[in-house]
Amino acid sequence: MIRIAFDELRGRVEQVLAGAGLTAQREALGARLIAETDRDGVRTHGIARLPRFVEMVRLGRIDPRAEPKKVASFGALERWTGHRGPGNLAAFAMTERAVALAREHGVGAVALGDTTHWQRGGTYGWQAAEAGCALLAWTNTMPNLPPWGAVSAALGNNPLVIAVPRPGGAPVILDFAMSQFSYGALASYRGRGEELPVPGGYDERGELTQDPAAVERTQRALPVGFWKGSGLAFVLDLLAAMLAGGQATHEIEADPLKEVGVSQVFLAVSPEAVGTQAEMERTVAGCVDALHAAQPVTTGVLPRYPGENTLRVREESVRLGVGVDEAVWAKFLPLEDVR
Amino acid sequence: MIRIAFDELRGRVEQVLAGAGLTAQREALGARLIAETDRDGVRTHGIARLPRFVEMVRLGRIDPRAEPKKVASFGALERWTGHRGPGNLAAFAMTERAVALAREHGVGAVALGDTTHWQRGGTYGWQAAEAGCALLAWTNTMPNLPPWGAVSAALGNNPLVIAVPRPGGAPVILDFAMSQFSYGALASYRGRGEELPVPGGYDERGELTQDPAAVERTQRALPVGFWKGSGLAFVLDLLAAMLAGGQATHEIEADPLKEVGVSQVFLAVSPEAVGTQAEMERTVAGCVDALHAAQPVTTGVLPRYPGENTLRVREESVRLGVGVDEAVWAKFLPLEDVR
Repeated sequence: MIRIAFDELRGRVEQVLAGAGLTAQREALGARLIAETDRDGVRTHGIARLPRFVEMVRLGRIDPRAEPKKVASFGALERWTGHRGPGNLAAFAMTERAVALAREHGVGAVALGDTTHWQRGGTYGWQAAEAGCALLAWTNTMPNLPPWGAVSAALGNNPLVIAVPRPGGAPVILDFAMSQFSYGALASYRGRGEELPVPGGYDERGELTQDPAAVERTQRALPVGFWKGSGLAFVLDLLAAMLAGGQATHEIEADPLKEVGVSQVFLAVSPEAVGTQAEMERTVAGCVDALHAAQPVTTGVLPRYPGENTLRVREESVRLGVGVDEAVWAKFLPLEDVR
Repeated sequence: MIRIAFDELRGRVEQVLAGAGLTAQREALGARLIAETDRDGVRTHGIARLPRFVEMVRLGRIDPRAEPKKVASFGALERWTGHRGPGNLAAFAMTERAVALAREHGVGAVALGDTTHWQRGGTYGWQAAEAGCALLAWTNTMPNLPPWGAVSAALGNNPLVIAVPRPGGAPVILDFAMSQFSYGALASYRGRGEELPVPGGYDERGELTQDPAAVERTQRALPVGFWKGSGLAFVLDLLAAMLAGGQATHEIEADPLKEVGVSQVFLAVSPEAVGTQAEMERTVAGCVDALHAAQPVTTGVLPRYPGENTLRVREESVRLGVGVDEAVWAKFLPLEDVR
């Protein structure tokens, strides 16, 4: 791993995005969101995804200049279309819109159709929490996960984000996909020669396995909670497609370079409705303390709440530079030449 | 298993609820919700829970006459308190209120504090879907699930319901708790002398096990998706407590006879926003067809969507009588004597 100063990373990403055709302020925002993803340690979803983004722009599958447009309003809920613009910029705008609707109505929601990969889902959780709002948001994806009872992919791994604000800026941010391990995570374990810590899918004999390579071979990754995560992935997809008037997973091409036209939902709750600062802090601190008071499996290793580690990684990235994998960096550098 | 005609079952439950102190229309509604739960085959959450309910009324922990009251309104979102009345009646009323708010604002939400066990969560999903609305709803519970990384219970199994309406009345209803198997399910497997189909918790050596008795001994049930369900249980609890201004799991006594003062959220989306009947049907049918088209693990056994089985069981219950376990019925009969 190498370390790159945050501002340098952000600036270089900005140049790449400008080269890809993003216009003035949008390239700056896009670069900030991507660099912050690496800064927060979510290395699978930051600059690691930039080569694919640039290639999809080059192929005309992502329109770098498209901005989301409102197509219907139902009061506190709106339907927008992304016109296949940069997915992170659209999701950022829709979170902002859901927050504004929540401030007006107590709760506010936006369903967004025909958009592209939102990159790191947690980004929008942090965004809403920093605006004092709770957020529920999810996206569908191309088919990449077998439903419970099947061997072929018919569900998306449909990331779900739930954010709860906290005074003082250490919100609780849950950001998880419906497969127990992403294919990126499976490859990492295999590369390190490690077993998975828990079963991650099925081997060729149809048995649960902790061998990452076996799951890569069968492509039978495990939904979280077996039938439960399978059901959750199904309803999140259905609801996103229905509310957005957009595509469901089965309508999205199962090719990472053609995964466009996805559907997303952003639902925010107003700061007023989550209580006073003192009430919020009492509730969050009480839940966190109770979690930390549980008897740990390993002495001294406390159970963690979702997002607990992020501020520590962020501080380290700011102090030492943002950690970037050499292999990721080697694929980033050529992108600078095409600008 | 014995079979009892639906109307007879409903009538007898109504008499028991009247004996417990529920007043006129409320005893009828309560009885309908309970009998429908058994009718739909969710036998763990129907009359099987009635002895506990009656005992909690007798102990003064549930107030049979209490009705939910609104304590704050933020527009499309309201905060109510349940005053520890019958949890199913309160949840029914709050779903009705969320649906009304959704019809007015596009999306509507109610957070309910100080309520009691809502019994079958799917009830409110069906209720919303029959009103043409999508619903997200969840409740917290007493601590009964160890967080990931801990051996002692510090999370609730916090059931989550997501309902998507469908024209013609076969909605998609997801209703699941955060533990892979409930303790009721573990006892059933043990009683039948069966192994769990997948790992359900930890044995005394701290290893994942499919032996239901081992999990009952250690009380280390598994959250769905290991760390993922653990995180989801945590944020659902936190968000419910915060929005309701109510108790979080750690504040609820870990005793089934004292599990009161729980917090719940009901969030509905208007029929208008889920599209025309034709659009809805196209979206649902497309997703269901794609699911059924996945290559099954066992030839001829199609993957199922959440709630797919319910209408079949319901039809059978109406035709043959509602199936009731003998042991459950033996505990129901004495309740009729105290009225």
